[in-house]
Amino acid sequence: MTPAEDAQLALLLEVAGTPKPGNVDRDRDFPDLRFDHFLAGAVGAGPGLRAAQKGAPVGEAFEEAVAGMSQQEGGNTQFGALLLLVPLVRAAVEHPDGKPTPEGVARVVKNTTVEDAANFFRAFDHADVFVDDPPEDAEDLDVRRGSDAIPAVENRGVTLSDVMAMGDDEDGVAREWTTDFERTFWAANRLAELDGPASARGARVYLELLGREPDTLVAKKHGQKTAESVRVRAQQALEAGPEVVEAFADSLVKDGVNPGTTADITAGGLFVALARGEVSV
Amino acid sequence: MTPAEDAQLALLLEVAGTPKPGNVDRDRDFPDLRFDHFLAGAVGAGPGLRAAQKGAPVGEAFEEAVAGMSQQEGGNTQFGALLLLVPLVRAAVEHPDGKPTPEGVARVVKNTTVEDAANFFRAFDHADVFVDDPPEDAEDLDVRRGSDAIPAVENRGVTLSDVMAMGDDEDGVAREWTTDFERTFWAANRLAELDGPASARGARVYLELLGREPDTLVAKKHGQKTAESVRVRAQQALEAGPEVVEAFADSLVKDGVNPGTTADITAGGLFVALARGEVSV
Repeated sequence: MTPAEDAQLALLLEVAGTPKPGNVDRDRDFPDLRFDHFLAGAVGAGPGLRAAQKGAPVGEAFEEAVAGMSQQEGGNTQFGALLLLVPLVRAAVEHPDGKPTPEGVARVVKNTTVEDAANFFRAFDHADVFVDDPPEDAEDLDVRRGSDAIPAVENRGVTLSDVMAMGDDEDGVAREWTTDFERTFWAANRLAELDGPASARGARVYLELLGREPDTLVAKKHGQKTAESVRVRAQQALEAGPEVVEAFADSLVKDGVNPGTTADITAGGLFVALARGEVSV
Repeated sequence: MTPAEDAQLALLLEVAGTPKPGNVDRDRDFPDLRFDHFLAGAVGAGPGLRAAQKGAPVGEAFEEAVAGMSQQEGGNTQFGALLLLVPLVRAAVEHPDGKPTPEGVARVVKNTTVEDAANFFRAFDHADVFVDDPPEDAEDLDVRRGSDAIPAVENRGVTLSDVMAMGDDEDGVAREWTTDFERTFWAANRLAELDGPASARGARVYLELLGREPDTLVAKKHGQKTAESVRVRAQQALEAGPEVVEAFADSLVKDGVNPGTTADITAGGLFVALARGEVSV
């Protein structure tokens, strides 16, 4: 498979893995956000992922992927996952053996431009993404302004990697950009070590990621304390086994707690493991 | 979405629908054929579906789709579905409003060539497809010979529609080709009438199709009597409700009875309903 196909498959395997407490998976639909929406999001993201593969700049390919992903009625399904996958696809393409590496993706991040930042802001015009307030000295760069923020992006001359660095305290996807995709590669290594079907490994690694660090989407929506409590419960569920994991999953759905950032990183890890040939389907 | 994207989404929605008695679905894996394999098959079929959209001849696009679909370890996942989807994508592209119609797909079938037939045989080199013996006067056209049969195809000057007409007694997909995709369009109309998420409508229509006509893959593998008994039980399960449907599903899996042709027609119907805008996700 090509890198763009591996990325599309990673999106599908991520959502297929079950149980993934708090997230839509093949056994759990939310009332307005369903498994079908994630399937359509993965199909629609295809042209943007292929654009990244063919050499389009990261920002342009990301905006195209998000626009395509948004052609379904569930809202934001895979924005964060695509923000990891697009630079990872570029890193795979730029590597002589097609393998994404931390060094390769660091280079992709470093080479992003002001134009990439502008296209990143444009992507917010297509999808309703939950984000926090920007830092006080950067209110003109509030991503919720979408393309209206582009003049400020250009005036300040910030690149896409600069934008990510502004958000890496609050956002676990942005933090991947400033840490050479550390948790993504950790997830890929774990996926390679496990046995079983790829989607089942994904569900396991999701839970391990969730038990290691508080999910930043949960922290933004429900506060740091809830995020930390979810982390502890994920760790306990891992130790206790499948029945407790199922109960934990049901309780998060009941409380409307959705660790979406952890799912994004799982998708990134699945891509890396597929592209390195360490996990196959 | 483009016709090729609608086709890819149709493949995914088909396998996501549950319960689909006797087939892999989001709740049921077989030991060697799993949900993940169908996800990878749908991703891999993308380039062939896009080739059909861009104007490649039916046989060439079909072979490319099957080759791509086969880049997974589960074996034949969507061969029959693609044999319906490729001409349907061509019919959609050739229609002024992008809508597949019985007349349009009949024209695509009628215009197939000897070259299309040759590429259809080539597709069998990529996937292990369960088929019956050919008619006695056409042993040189046994599809199991794959590309070895191409000299016979060319000597006899048979087109792809001729090949389908030879198999339409035994094979429900071939029969669609010789009946202007009658059951596919019936399925699309039913999908449009139902309520609920697209994949759930697909599961319902699958069961209705199964209750109306014996599945030809079941007939080939287990005999006409078993196929007819499965048909009757599907009809009874439909009338009795969800619990009986689940029990029916479990019993087919236990007996290794897999109504694959009915699933193929469901995928075709989902494509038509998506492309006509009657079902959305």
